[in-house]
Amino acid sequence: MITMEIESILDSMQKEGIESLIIFKPANITYLSGFPPSSMSVIVIKDDALLYTSKMEMEDASNSSNIPLTEFKSLIDIIKDLKGPVGIEKTLPVSIYKKICNLHDTKINEIIESKRMLKSPDEIKYIQNAIDIAEESLLNIEICGRENQVAADLEYRLKSLGSIRPAFETIIASGKRSSMPHATISSENILSPVVIDWGAVYNGYCSDITRTFIENEEQSEIFNIVLEAQQEAIKVIKPGIKASYVDKVARGVIGEYGYEENFIHSTGHGMGIEVHENPTLSVNSNFKLEKGMVITIEPGIYIKDKFGIRIEDDILIKNKAKALTKLKKDLSLNIN
Amino acid sequence: MITMEIESILDSMQKEGIESLIIFKPANITYLSGFPPSSMSVIVIKDDALLYTSKMEMEDASNSSNIPLTEFKSLIDIIKDLKGPVGIEKTLPVSIYKKICNLHDTKINEIIESKRMLKSPDEIKYIQNAIDIAEESLLNIEICGRENQVAADLEYRLKSLGSIRPAFETIIASGKRSSMPHATISSENILSPVVIDWGAVYNGYCSDITRTFIENEEQSEIFNIVLEAQQEAIKVIKPGIKASYVDKVARGVIGEYGYEENFIHSTGHGMGIEVHENPTLSVNSNFKLEKGMVITIEPGIYIKDKFGIRIEDDILIKNKAKALTKLKKDLSLNIN
Repeated sequence: MITMEIESILDSMQKEGIESLIIFKPANITYLSGFPPSSMSVIVIKDDALLYTSKMEMEDASNSSNIPLTEFKSLIDIIKDLKGPVGIEKTLPVSIYKKICNLHDTKINEIIESKRMLKSPDEIKYIQNAIDIAEESLLNIEICGRENQVAADLEYRLKSLGSIRPAFETIIASGKRSSMPHATISSENILSPVVIDWGAVYNGYCSDITRTFIENEEQSEIFNIVLEAQQEAIKVIKPGIKASYVDKVARGVIGEYGYEENFIHSTGHGMGIEVHENPTLSVNSNFKLEKGMVITIEPGIYIKDKFGIRIEDDILIKNKAKALTKLKKDLSLNIN
Repeated sequence: MITMEIESILDSMQKEGIESLIIFKPANITYLSGFPPSSMSVIVIKDDALLYTSKMEMEDASNSSNIPLTEFKSLIDIIKDLKGPVGIEKTLPVSIYKKICNLHDTKINEIIESKRMLKSPDEIKYIQNAIDIAEESLLNIEICGRENQVAADLEYRLKSLGSIRPAFETIIASGKRSSMPHATISSENILSPVVIDWGAVYNGYCSDITRTFIENEEQSEIFNIVLEAQQEAIKVIKPGIKASYVDKVARGVIGEYGYEENFIHSTGHGMGIEVHENPTLSVNSNFKLEKGMVITIEPGIYIKDKFGIRIEDDILIKNKAKALTKLKKDLSLNIN
């Protein structure tokens, strides 16, 4: 029995001149089968889809996989039986790539990743749940003590509310450290402002939100610029628009105030099974936005040796942008 | 200035006929520079080592990198300037691999991974700290309620005690679910037995421990077989011995009792910056054990639809095995 999902992949394969598709990336295996592998697993799509997984995971996979399953034994046998040209993912162990390309024509493709960009109603529901869990986790949290203590509290709440793990390493960057967008967490005392970038995972789907707690006029001024950049970017979102244009709008607002050099990352990214998925919303992005995509919009201004401010929300693209995050943005810090 | 570390890498490069080494893998970058990258970063070793990192991470990297640093701009320019033959890692984006191999001879190598197998006194100290944090986290924990609630408690304790994150997704697999070695966590009520597989990260280094809380005679019988397998395996550990032999000893004990088919994974693995590193202790492993390696020994018996038992300790190889874990193994469960 061929599901509609597999049929649509077979269509895309035909369009790209691909006879067999071999899938190693865990997120893609999870997407296709519902089974999140934690050891060597492969999906091969020729006329139908077949999941190979290790003996150790057969039991777990047989409970959760919705495509036929067999034990993984020899990669060479799998590769030998492929029909060419073979579709491969962008990142592969070099030795596997060599084996495939010695036997078959290969075509790097993003068929699964393109399907994953467009979320089904179920996927949107899972993402919304992941967002709700993350938002509820932040409510009434006490922002005091050490950065890692606040993170421990927040992650405890995430897990208690049903997030299997944090969607990524929670960022709590306060004081001068907030000027580093991906600051690793410290055991230093919380200072102001406090950038909190966190997410939950619900049923395999992620959320990714940032809020910045501010304290004074100087921070508030920068906060308002970032907020304006975010709002203007969200306003222009609609199906058919270039992802790079959304980035340009956010960057433009920040540039008007003279902080272009302080906005040192892209405006956003797709989000789903992985925290960072296609499409990217950056200067050089070639993606167009489409209905059903879920993206983040997260401008920021980072002033070295002073502080940084970032605001990040999760957006579903319908006829226009629909914010899935509801948490208020205007948060002030009272450090006792 | 060339550090002793880089000098030893240059030696290995010469032995393998490699002129330039290009490093993409984050764990290898962390090992060489002390900086854990969270975006596109590369280290190139020719006569000296140079770290390229994204604009966004320059500030963070300049605080923590102990090798010279420059901003990452164009991969093509970096590749163009390499001198061949070029040493590459096992797993690479195919497009990058193609670019390198079109311009240069390439040699897949594990120079950095081989260095990483042998831990320095500092690295052993960090691992010991990661073990101590994990062990202290389990002490006095209440094993009741739902699996994910116990995991939330445990991970809260890990983080509060200074673990930047869990070393991996904590496994709490109870009742029938304990027969899946890598069971994903559930929100079901705790049953017996309870397999807990967890680890801390201290200063970038991991621990990885498993304890099984048992309740009755039937479980105790299997527990004792697993314990005997572990003890016998640990007894034969010494420098120069084959890693596969240690696996054979553990597998042999379990086989004697008729459970060979129920030991469905390898006996252990190296541990350090990554939870799973070289050497592997499996049937087909080609590694020999050496002084300074830190490995896990983790036999298990998994009986489908009944239960599973695993015991895992972290071992430093000196003249013989030295257990770094100290937590008692004989743990009984009292579910109220």
